[in-house]
Amino acid sequence: MNLALPLPAADQAVPSAKALIPFVSVANMMRLVHRIGIEVMLRDLAEVLEGNFRRWESFDKTARIPAHSAEGVIELMPTSDGEVYGFKYVNGHPRNMRAGLQTVTAFGVLADMHTGYPVLLSEMTLLTALRTAAMSALAAKHLAPKGASTMAIIGNGAQSEFQALAFKAICGIDTVRLWDLDSAATEKCARNLRGHGLTIVPCASAEEAILGAHIVTTVTADKRLATILTDNMIGSGVHINAVGGDSPGKTELAREILLRADIFVEFPPQTRIEGEIQQLDPDHPVTELWEVIAGRRAGRTVDSQITLFDSVGFAIEDFSALTYVLAKAVEAGTYDLLDMVADPDDPRDLFGMLIRAGV
Amino acid sequence: MNLALPLPAADQAVPSAKALIPFVSVANMMRLVHRIGIEVMLRDLAEVLEGNFRRWESFDKTARIPAHSAEGVIELMPTSDGEVYGFKYVNGHPRNMRAGLQTVTAFGVLADMHTGYPVLLSEMTLLTALRTAAMSALAAKHLAPKGASTMAIIGNGAQSEFQALAFKAICGIDTVRLWDLDSAATEKCARNLRGHGLTIVPCASAEEAILGAHIVTTVTADKRLATILTDNMIGSGVHINAVGGDSPGKTELAREILLRADIFVEFPPQTRIEGEIQQLDPDHPVTELWEVIAGRRAGRTVDSQITLFDSVGFAIEDFSALTYVLAKAVEAGTYDLLDMVADPDDPRDLFGMLIRAGV
Repeated sequence: MNLALPLPAADQAVPSAKALIPFVSVANMMRLVHRIGIEVMLRDLAEVLEGNFRRWESFDKTARIPAHSAEGVIELMPTSDGEVYGFKYVNGHPRNMRAGLQTVTAFGVLADMHTGYPVLLSEMTLLTALRTAAMSALAAKHLAPKGASTMAIIGNGAQSEFQALAFKAICGIDTVRLWDLDSAATEKCARNLRGHGLTIVPCASAEEAILGAHIVTTVTADKRLATILTDNMIGSGVHINAVGGDSPGKTELAREILLRADIFVEFPPQTRIEGEIQQLDPDHPVTELWEVIAGRRAGRTVDSQITLFDSVGFAIEDFSALTYVLAKAVEAGTYDLLDMVADPDDPRDLFGMLIRAGV
Repeated sequence: MNLALPLPAADQAVPSAKALIPFVSVANMMRLVHRIGIEVMLRDLAEVLEGNFRRWESFDKTARIPAHSAEGVIELMPTSDGEVYGFKYVNGHPRNMRAGLQTVTAFGVLADMHTGYPVLLSEMTLLTALRTAAMSALAAKHLAPKGASTMAIIGNGAQSEFQALAFKAICGIDTVRLWDLDSAATEKCARNLRGHGLTIVPCASAEEAILGAHIVTTVTADKRLATILTDNMIGSGVHINAVGGDSPGKTELAREILLRADIFVEFPPQTRIEGEIQQLDPDHPVTELWEVIAGRRAGRTVDSQITLFDSVGFAIEDFSALTYVLAKAVEAGTYDLLDMVADPDDPRDLFGMLIRAGV
């Protein structure tokens, strides 16, 4: 990846070019999505994700670093491929919605491993929604039954429309069946998806939503051990895309479903703490998704198999999204420059720069 | 701490007030330092640090999370007191200087633990230099011999002038004796310190610099096991402020000095990996500085004692500096507002916000 940017030429002006970091604001991220087209961008992201999952072993991997409170969690998610470093700041606060705030907000940074200088700061609330959906659909491309055309979406909050479009763009889904505890959320989701080429079926219960669905996506937000799907709701051959169970004490599936399913995960040390499999023994067999994508292990082998992508989100996914956004934002000019790194003429003369600024 | 900010009133404009995060750029940080006065700010920072070291037990503490490369390290340093969350991104790349880049650059974030929303993004290259110097002087206030008036500074790079002024402002040092392997660095440091009320003595060797010094500050940057101070250079009664040895494989003091000194550290699990004491057995006795500041353990007890502050920098120090800067920047208006958090009218309608932005 080329980190060189078309920055202003260095001159005597303060701040100099080395001080300036490209920043993709929320407004610029929205501009970028519309310029590229949301379905094209979801496909692009899935492609970048697929490439990085194939070279999984070249990344430094560590479970994200959480700070828990009664209301939620703040997490840092760093990774590096030796050339580029990236991290995301992300929170998850289910009660925020009642105060008119987002449950999940995020921003991220890329830096050059050789100098340690940041090269990108970007909003990631929108970008996380996009990359999570692209990741879900990429996993389903490798795990869902062939010819899958109908998906149930249980939980119709902020992530739901992104999931629907990603599965359309990447897996060829043509029908989505929607259900949420709050029917207003389902109405919002159905309304937003109109005109995007999908058949939308709002449903009155989770049981109704999963009727005929080849893929079941669970994407609810409550921070508790919930049972969105009970054992008898899941028949053979289904692919479950479990997105909402993603921190300790926050799960969506009945344990019995997990015992019947072949389970695929991103980074086991993190998923065992945060994912649906926190309900299972710590040595319960799981397959790392990257091995399937790299062709080293089998994904779905028989039609009757229940496959489960126990998705919690991993740093390499954010790294992938950020490197994509840096390249595209520079190409499109959809970024600002932030005066974020002090850059004295003599790097040892930080103090002199400070003092001269006061004259 | 009150995180409420004088943000613009929420209206129909995009982005709304909830989307906007105060950002303190390098230029605004310099404005803030000059407005407050550098010595006043160093004293203020030492006071905030002292208060937070007294309530050390109320913070979540974790060793910083490093990403190492051949050229240096990038680290994330998070902490929280249950109300406010903070983290710093910082790099250390000793070879950067040759390319005209800073060895250390940094930025930091504060967030509200109850909502997970960021409340401040700030440059921290300058702020780290200020807080490191204030921390060093605060430790010396508790550990250096009474009446100390002369300090040697071995290593006259970007951090050196900040150290000199902090020890003047907080410990009453009136004379600094300077030495660096590169005499141009010493000349730069001496020139910068002129007119700040200190007697400056440039020296031709480390041995000469420590003559008559009550406090010896080592603040060199090379990433190796160096021996800036040998055993016979350190007599009884001296306080050593060891700042430069701060990552695995990067130390400055002869092991024999450590064996003769009473050693004070910030957070032992981090210092045992990164500090001078990486040269010692993992159970070598050390005192946590916060216990001295909180009055629970003795600092210096006899005149002849060699005290050593094995400083590596800890997240609570950055947290302290960021909370101070947030309050002062808001008061002074020295900040910009960044459109960093997506804020749809209905928090569940992130997709709708995105789609409407394209119309």
